[in-house]
Amino acid sequence: MSGIFGIYSPKPQRVADYCYYALYALQHRGQESCGIVVNNQGLLRSHKDAGLVNDVFTKEALEGLGEGKIAVGHVRYGTTGINPRQNAQPITVNHVKGLMALAHNGALTNAYELREELELNGSIFHTSSDAEVFAYSIVRERLRSSSIEEAVAASMDVLKGAYSLIIMSSTKLIGARDPFGMRPLCIGQLDDCWVLASESCALDSIGAAFIRDVEPGEIVVIDKNGIRFDKRHIGVKPKNTCIFEHIYFARPDSVIDCDSVHMARRMAGQLLAEDHPVEADVVIGVPDSGLDAALGFSKASGIPYGIGFIKNKYIGRTFIQPTQKDRENKVRIKLNPVSATVKGKRVVLVDDSIVRGTTSARIVKLLRDAGATEVHMRSSAPPFLYPCYFGTDIDSPEKLIAHNHTIEEIREIIGVDSLGYLSKENALKLTQNSCGFCTGCFTGVYPTDPPKHIDRSKFEMSIMEEDLK
Amino acid sequence: MSGIFGIYSPKPQRVADYCYYALYALQHRGQESCGIVVNNQGLLRSHKDAGLVNDVFTKEALEGLGEGKIAVGHVRYGTTGINPRQNAQPITVNHVKGLMALAHNGALTNAYELREELELNGSIFHTSSDAEVFAYSIVRERLRSSSIEEAVAASMDVLKGAYSLIIMSSTKLIGARDPFGMRPLCIGQLDDCWVLASESCALDSIGAAFIRDVEPGEIVVIDKNGIRFDKRHIGVKPKNTCIFEHIYFARPDSVIDCDSVHMARRMAGQLLAEDHPVEADVVIGVPDSGLDAALGFSKASGIPYGIGFIKNKYIGRTFIQPTQKDRENKVRIKLNPVSATVKGKRVVLVDDSIVRGTTSARIVKLLRDAGATEVHMRSSAPPFLYPCYFGTDIDSPEKLIAHNHTIEEIREIIGVDSLGYLSKENALKLTQNSCGFCTGCFTGVYPTDPPKHIDRSKFEMSIMEEDLK
Amino acid sequence: MSGIFGIYSPKPQRVADYCYYALYALQHRGQESCGIVVNNQGLLRSHKDAGLVNDVFTKEALEGLGEGKIAVGHVRYGTTGINPRQNAQPITVNHVKGLMALAHNGALTNAYELREELELNGSIFHTSSDAEVFAYSIVRERLRSSSIEEAVAASMDVLKGAYSLIIMSSTKLIGARDPFGMRPLCIGQLDDCWVLASESCALDSIGAAFIRDVEPGEIVVIDKNGIRFDKRHIGVKPKNTCIFEHIYFARPDSVIDCDSVHMARRMAGQLLAEDHPVEADVVIGVPDSGLDAALGFSKASGIPYGIGFIKNKYIGRTFIQPTQKDRENKVRIKLNPVSATVKGKRVVLVDDSIVRGTTSARIVKLLRDAGATEVHMRSSAPPFLYPCYFGTDIDSPEKLIAHNHTIEEIREIIGVDSLGYLSKENALKLTQNSCGFCTGCFTGVYPTDPPKHIDRSKFEMSIMEEDLK
Amino acid sequence: MSGIFGIYSPKPQRVADYCYYALYALQHRGQESCGIVVNNQGLLRSHKDAGLVNDVFTKEALEGLGEGKIAVGHVRYGTTGINPRQNAQPITVNHVKGLMALAHNGALTNAYELREELELNGSIFHTSSDAEVFAYSIVRERLRSSSIEEAVAASMDVLKGAYSLIIMSSTKLIGARDPFGMRPLCIGQLDDCWVLASESCALDSIGAAFIRDVEPGEIVVIDKNGIRFDKRHIGVKPKNTCIFEHIYFARPDSVIDCDSVHMARRMAGQLLAEDHPVEADVVIGVPDSGLDAALGFSKASGIPYGIGFIKNKYIGRTFIQPTQKDRENKVRIKLNPVSATVKGKRVVLVDDSIVRGTTSARIVKLLRDAGATEVHMRSSAPPFLYPCYFGTDIDSPEKLIAHNHTIEEIREIIGVDSLGYLSKENALKLTQNSCGFCTGCFTGVYPTDPPKHIDRSKFEMSIMEEDLK
Repeated sequence: MSGIFGIYSPKPQRVADYCYYALYALQHRGQESCGIVVNNQGLLRSHKDAGLVNDVFTKEALEGLGEGKIAVGHVRYGTTGINPRQNAQPITVNHVKGLMALAHNGALTNAYELREELELNGSIFHTSSDAEVFAYSIVRERLRSSSIEEAVAASMDVLKGAYSLIIMSSTKLIGARDPFGMRPLCIGQLDDCWVLASESCALDSIGAAFIRDVEPGEIVVIDKNGIRFDKRHIGVKPKNTCIFEHIYFARPDSVIDCDSVHMARRMAGQLLAEDHPVEADVVIGVPDSGLDAALGFSKASGIPYGIGFIKNKYIGRTFIQPTQKDRENKVRIKLNPVSATVKGKRVVLVDDSIVRGTTSARIVKLLRDAGATEVHMRSSAPPFLYPCYFGTDIDSPEKLIAHNHTIEEIREIIGVDSLGYLSKENALKLTQNSCGFCTGCFTGVYPTDPPKHIDRSKFEMSIMEEDLK
Repeated sequence: MSGIFGIYSPKPQRVADYCYYALYALQHRGQESCGIVVNNQGLLRSHKDAGLVNDVFTKEALEGLGEGKIAVGHVRYGTTGINPRQNAQPITVNHVKGLMALAHNGALTNAYELREELELNGSIFHTSSDAEVFAYSIVRERLRSSSIEEAVAASMDVLKGAYSLIIMSSTKLIGARDPFGMRPLCIGQLDDCWVLASESCALDSIGAAFIRDVEPGEIVVIDKNGIRFDKRHIGVKPKNTCIFEHIYFARPDSVIDCDSVHMARRMAGQLLAEDHPVEADVVIGVPDSGLDAALGFSKASGIPYGIGFIKNKYIGRTFIQPTQKDRENKVRIKLNPVSATVKGKRVVLVDDSIVRGTTSARIVKLLRDAGATEVHMRSSAPPFLYPCYFGTDIDSPEKLIAHNHTIEEIREIIGVDSLGYLSKENALKLTQNSCGFCTGCFTGVYPTDPPKHIDRSKFEMSIMEEDLK
Repeated sequence: MSGIFGIYSPKPQRVADYCYYALYALQHRGQESCGIVVNNQGLLRSHKDAGLVNDVFTKEALEGLGEGKIAVGHVRYGTTGINPRQNAQPITVNHVKGLMALAHNGALTNAYELREELELNGSIFHTSSDAEVFAYSIVRERLRSSSIEEAVAASMDVLKGAYSLIIMSSTKLIGARDPFGMRPLCIGQLDDCWVLASESCALDSIGAAFIRDVEPGEIVVIDKNGIRFDKRHIGVKPKNTCIFEHIYFARPDSVIDCDSVHMARRMAGQLLAEDHPVEADVVIGVPDSGLDAALGFSKASGIPYGIGFIKNKYIGRTFIQPTQKDRENKVRIKLNPVSATVKGKRVVLVDDSIVRGTTSARIVKLLRDAGATEVHMRSSAPPFLYPCYFGTDIDSPEKLIAHNHTIEEIREIIGVDSLGYLSKENALKLTQNSCGFCTGCFTGVYPTDPPKHIDRSKFEMSIMEEDLK
Repeated sequence: MSGIFGIYSPKPQRVADYCYYALYALQHRGQESCGIVVNNQGLLRSHKDAGLVNDVFTKEALEGLGEGKIAVGHVRYGTTGINPRQNAQPITVNHVKGLMALAHNGALTNAYELREELELNGSIFHTSSDAEVFAYSIVRERLRSSSIEEAVAASMDVLKGAYSLIIMSSTKLIGARDPFGMRPLCIGQLDDCWVLASESCALDSIGAAFIRDVEPGEIVVIDKNGIRFDKRHIGVKPKNTCIFEHIYFARPDSVIDCDSVHMARRMAGQLLAEDHPVEADVVIGVPDSGLDAALGFSKASGIPYGIGFIKNKYIGRTFIQPTQKDRENKVRIKLNPVSATVKGKRVVLVDDSIVRGTTSARIVKLLRDAGATEVHMRSSAPPFLYPCYFGTDIDSPEKLIAHNHTIEEIREIIGVDSLGYLSKENALKLTQNSCGFCTGCFTGVYPTDPPKHIDRSKFEMSIMEEDLK
């Protein structure tokens, strides 16, 4: 998971500022590190580091990036916690035909093989991230291609997995989406500038107009001659957008492949109400991730929607965690139930997923302490049963509660009166306009082969649920 | 506006930690400065500074406060911006009979006169804040009283205005609420400790049980003998709780004088729908302050409730503001409309108040840009017409849009199809259990005389609306 | 120990900037906290905090002080480590006749009695520092005096001890030096501005001309009418300047009471060579405090002067101390011997004092490891045998090595071949122009009675030697 | 200019701590950026950034490096100011046969050619620094060599210029010095650990014993089998150590190639007194760089040595520069003359070099203002007339005062009564034990060809003199 952004301006200006605001809008896609690279007449100025946009980009740092015509930005969701500064993107490289900066969202399934092959031919890697494999593969093609866009197109024959890329050469801004269209990427326009972004909310944040999504397999090339499209890889593979972008990752105000994320989540709630109806007095969502689906559940079931929790919005990066003894209060400091909403009520509690179950159990306890007479949990995603190899970093099944327990066991662990997950069938019905989704994490059926070699370090991940939503 | 918290523990422990978490829960009551004072056997350790709890209290600073039996904490909503560090509370003083720390929420209307009188008798002030006037008045009484609680009781005869106080002597924790009960204060219990807090959400955050609100005029005394109450000032004045605590200031999950704040806001929405009905397709609230009332409006009107905006939760203290040219985007970066909710719809937009009108106008423009066909604004508070002298710092009528314009003019300025405010009559019906409210800011009728001398510096206030909710 | 500075400018300008540079020059007089208060037409803006000038005054903080006609600055040498932020000076107070800011260097011997008397009359103290006792005593007099300078003059009848004061009223800058002249204070001129400073090096740092020292007991008053002097307390007491200002505290480039500090230290070295001659090959000083005396010793003895140590100048506030195991290296990281200077040589090692002896022992070991065949230690101050009650905070005899051991014992503990201290007689001969010194710490004979009540917290001091010179 | 350090420990321990202290000792060799890489069983943890050791390495950052058997550290003297974070060393790379970290001191004269050749063969560079050229050249050899040390040896055939290298593979620590021996490198021992460092002062700082200097052309290999030496490149080229290491760069307490740096500088002063004798009353040095030579000048001339300036030791990284108007005071804030030493005296002022002349002129003015009757400037280095291509970054002759003016003109610009430089002949006589120096910057005669392609960005250098010594 990552967020990417690029901008091309016909005349030099403070393009880094647009990246900065866009990265704020994409911050939910990654909080480990972030970076911006600005191209001023071929001189690249770069600033990237571990931390949130708010921490990494001081006024001084942002101004230090100067003016330019092209810029690329990135926010990264890291997993291993090792050398986060070094793994920050965009990556910048020099090669015999020029320079390149690259930011990507996704994961290669043949990174190990590509890396080995490149190293055997003398390539030297500085990090263990996929970004370098992308960059080196493209540069390898560049040496035998007539242009950077040709090199990108050629390298897409060998790059396997889920990815959206934004690449900057000395004169061009290029975007590409993998042939399965697993990760999102869209095109916007702001005055006479073109922009590319993971999600449309980043366009909104800078006041850019949404033009359209990049199609699966499509390559977008922007330079002084305007915008053009390379469509050779379009339609080669069946569309397989990650269903979790709609259910979990993307911001509700974004539109992906012509579907409102908010509406997909409301629909998830509606279908969930059909899958697992229940008699209750109020439907509440876990803020912020469960609110849209809770509203949909309320609409479909006729049970009134309520505001069940207040989330503390002042808890920052340097919040001092309670000691072991008070750890139970940790959830409570971040999330406090509204007694007036739940006291003496039968409550339907909607969240977008149940990963390890620990947080859900604590939230349920808060509701019972606040006087809820019954708590019925509903997950707007089907159970996670299989690892994901395509960039979501939920690849260690052992830690997934649904992998190790029956639904009845989970119900008991979480401490609810009933528990229901969205059915796999309905998970495919969330969108109105688009179809073709990867549901590998529910079904174990993937659009392409899983990687043969898995980097063990990736298993030391920090499951998303831990940072309480 | 401020938030205050105090704790008394029979045995020494890390009482500062409880203050820390409680101040996080009260942060919405003041973001200019904060502080904690810990009493360890009569040795006071203090840490306070300008900034949010998250910034002021590093791990080192919090640990530096050590253990103790009593602690007092404070968050302050400042207005003048001059010397915020110096005005941070709690204030600590030494006098011939001992030491004292004091934190208050509210404002004195006779501060000028008391200050003058004290200075004429040789008192020396270090700041221009009311906190010193409170402290010095109490110490003056202390010199001729048998105990600190007697001194507090005696000083309440001369202190005029709105206030809740938490005071720490070398051996006691004392709370007091002004006879009108204008500002809230409540009592909680955590294991064998007693706590006092501005709002019940602070009790929840540390897992303390809510016992009851302090009554208007009541003094609470806690020491090694337990808790006791001085009731001599109770019932002397008619109850006049600030209605804005329910409408605006308090956190929705708090309960004030036996009424849920969330429910009062829902009720405001319901009554607002009666006051100003409209035909529309969706009701949305401005996050986070308008959500409760929007839900009430939806319920009363039958118009579906929708999620109209996504608020960016990563914008921190060091966010770099857009330059003049891009200033219009400032709202958009913080708040982005969900097109799917509003496109092609007639929208009812609910907020809790309209102060200067600038922000409302920008938000309305966002909705129109997102495709709303009609926008009907509804304010869950009546128009602000008169200054408040009781601690809310909205005391400069010239800056209030409602003071200078008719409702029709405001409607035009904001750019909405219709505009309705909650009626003054209905503003008195928000609560189920309590009655007796100060509505001076709507009516110009105050429970007690306004101050004769007004500190001019207070007019250089920063109206609350500016920090977009 | 503290450093103080004040400036009066006939027209408003950035007077805080001059304070800032002057405090840098006075930083050696105190590193615990610092502060500046600027008077802009009677509105005081203040910034003070625990830390070095370099840390406390960011660009933003300095600019926030704005312009003004008068400013006062302070650096503080703290001892107890409790609430350093609260004890930072200058202190600012309001009273019925106006406002006042005050910074002092020194210590009252009757602070306890004055404080008790003031408290009995209703005064309320915020801290336990002498600064408040000074301020409150002066304000008490102010209420019955016709002017602030009269109040200062009157309060000097009751204030006992060692002090130099700089006071700012709404329109005046006032300086005063105690009748014994124990702490230094001098007058300078910069264009049309008058300045006051603890040491002349602060004048140099801002390019101000040195005019003269303030005389013992003299009061200097500066306002729009220029400078004038109140001489009523001059000559009332015998001059008793602290001899340690010359030996240890002041910066060598300062001139105090017409004597160069550097020259006094060279003279100390010369007299030391007479007191304790030795046959040796090279004389070296401990940087930076022993260099001047080492040069004097070399001159008088004819033994060549050498550079014996290189001091690491990059060790800052956040230097991470070696763990216990490597603690011996701590001295070495800060101070490394120059082998070429000492190898195979009989070395005379000169320092300005031996406090606890621990650091001296480590330095001697470094020299032996570097090949010195003999090490002869010479201290350019006589042994510390008695506490100082006048602001140097060396008041706990138990921790002084000379208090508990004979010179022969100290020689053995430090591990040197011979050890010699400057004789008490010669300590009185360091200066050419001035005479009349307090030598209480060597002799136990004080110019005025020691305090009857000693604040115990002062004994938890950190002896100066620990921060290796 | 850079400082490098490496350590090999037979058992895992906190090797990063030793790097940290050693880098403090080497900080004078570079202040732009610094870094440490720790090898824990082949897992590299790295921390590097722009800034001083004191700023970059927080306690958290240092502890985050964990334990390991091998570590490499680096401090960098940057010139262009572009992307300093990205250019920080040590550089870490992965290749088909393993991983490598590398830190270097020096400059390649054929970097351009090597880079071009590598890029034509597909190498991809991330930065424009020489470090990557070193690393890639060695890796290229590694692919056809049996061991990393063979690869280093082979690459030394093609790497041209001045360099000392420290390289870490997954199991070995390797050091190498270029065949001319232009940059220093030495070997030390600490318990059972081996260490390598640019200067012996770094060994001292961690308590390691100095073993010997690495010989020009020598390769040192340390692994679990102990230490061994590859001598194939020894003696191939004539020794050409940079004379400026002795005159300017190195710390006086270091010993380079068996000669004390302090003694070389004293000798420079002595020879300078022979080259340019003068009648005067006192000899003073500009702290800290001119002190050693001033002592030598005093000894040879018989003119007494004096302490002429006090340097402010509290001026840190965030010192706020005086505004244009007060810029003249900038020198004075950092450096204040001791009037007592120079007033009414004929002064010999010794410094180690005169680069642009601006600072010298300001210092001379300070002396005249302080009452010096005559000022005779003596430079302990000959005039800089030619660029240096070997890592000292004084490669733009236009900015060198000696390049554009006669000595008489310089004398006038600086404002001294006489001016003398050490003669080129005497510059070769500074050392007692070693011989063979590069004096290209005085003579224009270089040991090897200057680079054919010069990176223009290097000319935007900040001449060393600017940061006042």
